[in-house]
Amino acid sequence: MLFHVQMTVRLPHDMPADVADELKAREKAMAQSLQRDGTWRHLWRIAGRYANVSIFDVDSPAALHDVLSRLPLFPYMDIEVQALCRHASSIHDDDR
Amino acid sequence: MLFHVQMTVRLPHDMPADVADELKAREKAMAQSLQRDGTWRHLWRIAGRYANVSIFDVDSPAALHDVLSRLPLFPYMDIEVQALCRHASSIHDDDR
Amino acid sequence: MLFHVQMTVRLPHDMPADVADELKAREKAMAQSLQRDGTWRHLWRIAGRYANVSIFDVDSPAALHDVLSRLPLFPYMDIEVQALCRHASSIHDDDR
Amino acid sequence: MLFHVQMTVRLPHDMPADVADELKAREKAMAQSLQRDGTWRHLWRIAGRYANVSIFDVDSPAALHDVLSRLPLFPYMDIEVQALCRHASSIHDDDR
Amino acid sequence: MLFHVQMTVRLPHDMPADVADELKAREKAMAQSLQRDGTWRHLWRIAGRYANVSIFDVDSPAALHDVLSRLPLFPYMDIEVQALCRHASSIHDDDR
Amino acid sequence: MLFHVQMTVRLPHDMPADVADELKAREKAMAQSLQRDGTWRHLWRIAGRYANVSIFDVDSPAALHDVLSRLPLFPYMDIEVQALCRHASSIHDDDR
Amino acid sequence: MLFHVQMTVRLPHDMPADVADELKAREKAMAQSLQRDGTWRHLWRIAGRYANVSIFDVDSPAALHDVLSRLPLFPYMDIEVQALCRHASSIHDDDR
Amino acid sequence: MLFHVQMTVRLPHDMPADVADELKAREKAMAQSLQRDGTWRHLWRIAGRYANVSIFDVDSPAALHDVLSRLPLFPYMDIEVQALCRHASSIHDDDR
Amino acid sequence: MLFHVQMTVRLPHDMPADVADELKAREKAMAQSLQRDGTWRHLWRIAGRYANVSIFDVDSPAALHDVLSRLPLFPYMDIEVQALCRHASSIHDDDR
Amino acid sequence: MLFHVQMTVRLPHDMPADVADELKAREKAMAQSLQRDGTWRHLWRIAGRYANVSIFDVDSPAALHDVLSRLPLFPYMDIEVQALCRHASSIHDDDR
Repeated sequence: MLFHVQMTVRLPHDMPADVADELKAREKAMAQSLQRDGTWRHLWRIAGRYANVSIFDVDSPAALHDVLSRLPLFPYMDIEVQALCRHASSIHDDDR
Repeated sequence: MLFHVQMTVRLPHDMPADVADELKAREKAMAQSLQRDGTWRHLWRIAGRYANVSIFDVDSPAALHDVLSRLPLFPYMDIEVQALCRHASSIHDDDR
Repeated sequence: MLFHVQMTVRLPHDMPADVADELKAREKAMAQSLQRDGTWRHLWRIAGRYANVSIFDVDSPAALHDVLSRLPLFPYMDIEVQALCRHASSIHDDDR
Repeated sequence: MLFHVQMTVRLPHDMPADVADELKAREKAMAQSLQRDGTWRHLWRIAGRYANVSIFDVDSPAALHDVLSRLPLFPYMDIEVQALCRHASSIHDDDR
Repeated sequence: MLFHVQMTVRLPHDMPADVADELKAREKAMAQSLQRDGTWRHLWRIAGRYANVSIFDVDSPAALHDVLSRLPLFPYMDIEVQALCRHASSIHDDDR
Repeated sequence: MLFHVQMTVRLPHDMPADVADELKAREKAMAQSLQRDGTWRHLWRIAGRYANVSIFDVDSPAALHDVLSRLPLFPYMDIEVQALCRHASSIHDDDR
Repeated sequence: MLFHVQMTVRLPHDMPADVADELKAREKAMAQSLQRDGTWRHLWRIAGRYANVSIFDVDSPAALHDVLSRLPLFPYMDIEVQALCRHASSIHDDDR
Repeated sequence: MLFHVQMTVRLPHDMPADVADELKAREKAMAQSLQRDGTWRHLWRIAGRYANVSIFDVDSPAALHDVLSRLPLFPYMDIEVQALCRHASSIHDDDR
Repeated sequence: MLFHVQMTVRLPHDMPADVADELKAREKAMAQSLQRDGTWRHLWRIAGRYANVSIFDVDSPAALHDVLSRLPLFPYMDIEVQALCRHASSIHDDDR
Repeated sequence: MLFHVQMTVRLPHDMPADVADELKAREKAMAQSLQRDGTWRHLWRIAGRYANVSIFDVDSPAALHDVLSRLPLFPYMDIEVQALCRHASSIHDDDR
């Protein structure tokens, strides 16, 4: 099932650059791994903000929480979740 | 280019059922036409609400406005637009 | 899976009393039917408001939307949905 | 009587990991003790957020405040309380 | 137990004056009856607004809901409820 | 004249415990002194929050500001003030 | 004592023009009478909006409510009240 | 021309007292100088808050910004500006 | 001097189409006249919404109010005004 | 295409003055370079606030994000983006 997730990142201004860089590198690696296995179906940057809009494809809300709470940037993100379902007017097979 | 659009429909309670049905039928026809020509790339229902999350692929903000303002339900919708761009961590070719 | 749903009812002031009564009677019948089949697991009134807090147990966001959008009062309700999952500190078997 | 409580945890980013771990361990122990004695009737994680939705069964608002204000994470939580009562459409005996 | 209730009245502009007057007269009679029996302990007007702040003394959230939902102006009021308890610094016996 | 005051306390997480304790002790002493002289007529805890609802009886807004701004916790509180007046439906002599 | 009052007028779109004109004429007459007797000390239009910022000089919150609630446009206004007092840095005698 | 300005001061809790005192003393001196030359026409304290409501009389928005941005407390204030103009119902010559 | 104005149009759903068309035609004529005389310096549509962002060049807040309040759609618009001034980093002569 | 961008700067109070000055100097240099090449078409200060309203002329949302995210003050700014398009009533050629 699909969930719409909007994440806004708020790193503390006093976080050392190397700590931030290491966090971001691990976040990117995990994001790409989750994309490869089909969990993180879409990932877009919101223009002008340190934020993204994402579509996750998981088996349950528990699986979604498990994925999100293990992201390296999780402690520094405001996250909003909306459960999605197929729209009666959609013609796209993968807009499940 | 991609735009993230969230539409919430608020039909007046005193709109006659046949007027509403006709509006919804025209909205659905136009939505499906725009999906077929690639303009309306994704369309999902938000669970529990008369609202959707959509991704539009257009040439400009002007083209987006032209499409949205001609939807039959446009006068009855609250619409929020966010411009999207490719995320540095995305591996999906079509997450342009 | 469980969803937390808060519903606030806003009936138009000019709705005739018999129309409102009939809507409420149908809403109550459907609510009790959904409780009997295990879909609507909890239903509480929020003290002092024409609103409730509910826990639904469904197979998917699509099933949740299907249930909610068929409620007779659906066109007159503001609905907020939050996906729930088991809490690591819970000891209750049915707090799935 | 029942109260609906939503808790959002905001630990300071500079709290040492061992202090946070010790706080969370004590919070979990107290949460489970309160569940065992029937005070904390339901406890769910909100998917994607460091937050929970809970139902407390206490004798008075004073008893609720006493319980919440002694939680180890209380100084780090935003807490919203709603008083609940039985819904006329409920058929569940324990939805008091 | 005590509950803090703030009520804001929003009468429809097209309600006939005699209907409004009759509603207000019944509201006043019920409010005074509830004050006489000790249920509605305090009632103040908020200066400059068609709104009041009230303190109710009831046996439960259910009793509070029962009282509020039977007020003649209930369908026309926005109501906010906060559960109160004794403050450790209070020296007033009746600030229970 | 009466003012309705809601105070929410936000102590910095890094305030040493003895400094906080000393502040709270001085706050309590001053609150009780103001209750004894009739200035602070009611003081209630809001269940589940480090916050209170209070009724002050003072000669003017200037007197109210003088009292509030001298409270030891003033620099750490969000304060909302509403001017009250007698309600036409009140039957309590002291709901001036 | 002084109160800061911001009033925003929201006339129903279907109010007949002559009814609106008559209300506004009565509002203006009362506003000027209250200015002449010193009650309504300042009255400014907020540029671009059907709204004003005003300073009232009255003996009590009750007097303020009495004045505001008798304004012909009172049922059509959103009103926000803030109690003012002399600022320690003011050098103007009439900024009481 | 007149501008309505509401300033809320938020000094960091860890600012040394002598630094804060020196800032406040310079702020007061500048505020009184601006009052003497007619720029800062009114200055009122909002009862119960570290905030003020002010009326400035300047030649342009640029002049207003120049004055506000040079205030010693400017970096620590939330400032809201509203442009004012003469109200058609005003009878006060200086309510320009 | 320049003012930044954001206008959102909310026409009543029951306004007859010919009344709406006549209002919009008059609004357009006045908007173009004000652009020709230099008062309405910029006018942009916000993509996806019945709203615009505009820059007005007027002699005073009073002149701005005079212009805005005479627009045919004024009674149907939410208007937000921000006073602008030259930015120290601007190199454009006409960004006064 | 044009984007409307509002930026509010929030520098940490404990940032050393020379670090802040160097950031602002680099921000100004980049802002002026972007104005010279036509990317940053308009730049205005909002009177009374450390904030600006800007119009950017870029080829895509991706280009906008690239420009904004490289500004030296980007980590310290709240940024709101609105996509603009030509207004049917505009007569200005450069209000594309």
